[in-house]
Amino acid sequence: MSGWLVIAGLGPGDEDLVTPDVRHALGQATDVVGYIPYVARVPERAGLQRHPSDNRVEIDRSRHALEMAAAGRRVVVVSSGDPGVFAMAAAVFEAVEAGPAGWRNLDIRVAPGITAMLAAAARAGAPLGHDFCAINLSDNLKPWALIEKRLRLAAEADFAMAFYNPRSKSRPEGFVRTLEILNDACQDKRLVIFARAVSTPEEDIRVVPLPDARAEMADMRTMVIVGSSTTRLIDRDGPPIVYTPRSVGA
Amino acid sequence: MSGWLVIAGLGPGDEDLVTPDVRHALGQATDVVGYIPYVARVPERAGLQRHPSDNRVEIDRSRHALEMAAAGRRVVVVSSGDPGVFAMAAAVFEAVEAGPAGWRNLDIRVAPGITAMLAAAARAGAPLGHDFCAINLSDNLKPWALIEKRLRLAAEADFAMAFYNPRSKSRPEGFVRTLEILNDACQDKRLVIFARAVSTPEEDIRVVPLPDARAEMADMRTMVIVGSSTTRLIDRDGPPIVYTPRSVGA
Repeated sequence: MSGWLVIAGLGPGDEDLVTPDVRHALGQATDVVGYIPYVARVPERAGLQRHPSDNRVEIDRSRHALEMAAAGRRVVVVSSGDPGVFAMAAAVFEAVEAGPAGWRNLDIRVAPGITAMLAAAARAGAPLGHDFCAINLSDNLKPWALIEKRLRLAAEADFAMAFYNPRSKSRPEGFVRTLEILNDACQDKRLVIFARAVSTPEEDIRVVPLPDARAEMADMRTMVIVGSSTTRLIDRDGPPIVYTPRSVGA
Repeated sequence: MSGWLVIAGLGPGDEDLVTPDVRHALGQATDVVGYIPYVARVPERAGLQRHPSDNRVEIDRSRHALEMAAAGRRVVVVSSGDPGVFAMAAAVFEAVEAGPAGWRNLDIRVAPGITAMLAAAARAGAPLGHDFCAINLSDNLKPWALIEKRLRLAAEADFAMAFYNPRSKSRPEGFVRTLEILNDACQDKRLVIFARAVSTPEEDIRVVPLPDARAEMADMRTMVIVGSSTTRLIDRDGPPIVYTPRSVGA
């Protein structure tokens, strides 16, 4: 039997947000590869070997998965969210490009998932209902100057913005600086959504005007969405609705 | 029994990309509301009334759904893709804000789905694996000058770009102009992906360098993704892999 590799998105946490497409791939797999907490989401069963690995070893993990697929195994690499958005798909293709020529013709497929920004947006209302951008605020893999440039241009373009990896213990200063840049670049009071652990029992959604946003409101499990200048808030009993209208006046 | 409203995403077309969360909502609904081809994707069953409506009547459709939920019915508004991305969620919240005060406290929830750009990206590889933006190229609801401004700033920010609604019969010139602007604004040969009818039997994926991109390569069912300056192409037997590496050099 010939091997294959599926790079699959498990969504934000709720099992009801995992697509049947991903479930089928997991059901046929001989091996599951991924970061420890994501592999832990895949139930054990006979015939399935689980290969959990630590964070920040994405290329090693990708090579391991490719080697197994090349050896005829049916391998699923699991990501949270969608594998194509700041997750494992790019890492696997980096490994393919740098690896043996035979890897290019392996049966490799990406199975999409519900990415964090769309799960967070759904919980808040529809803040990404108009043009928007998605920026990874981690400067592990790119210079901080590029992040700053993109933030300023995104503000000038009046995009709503979704921030992945806003804050971690190893770089607490980046998100402080992000808020300073946005307060400087946005002439208006943008709305900021802090969406933590969306679709899990620890879910917490908080909406504040940009001048009141504080870096401490985000942690590693938080998705941050900043509205555009047209984003609106509907007050009601319970959490407000935040949405960006489809129209922009001339 | 008290009514509710779920704004649900049906994904790009393949039924295996519809989440169990959305299936559950449809299974409990008394009424399904939406654009004709999306309502047609929901199987008929006893106890379920289907309310298909024409395109471009999003606010009327939203009011109708809200009225039914307020009257105690269990209503699902269906969108293709994700309802929060250029789809029905923003329209429903516009109707809520403009409607009777009581609508604000209805039980309304957005059930996310696989949006077209992520389904298209998955088929091509991982072109959105680094920072990116999503722009609706339709100028039905915003001035063309704003689209042009966003295109130029997005190119300057070196975002990968995903274009929704690149082209329709009523405005054939917009996408021609988009390609002119990108050829002018991008110093480098960006890769362009034309992803038509992704996840359906008519799926067609085409990858060309920006100077070779032609407006005729897109139609109403096409998602267009333009890579950043770092996006790479891996040649192999069959369609190439297009991906954007996670790293950008200093």
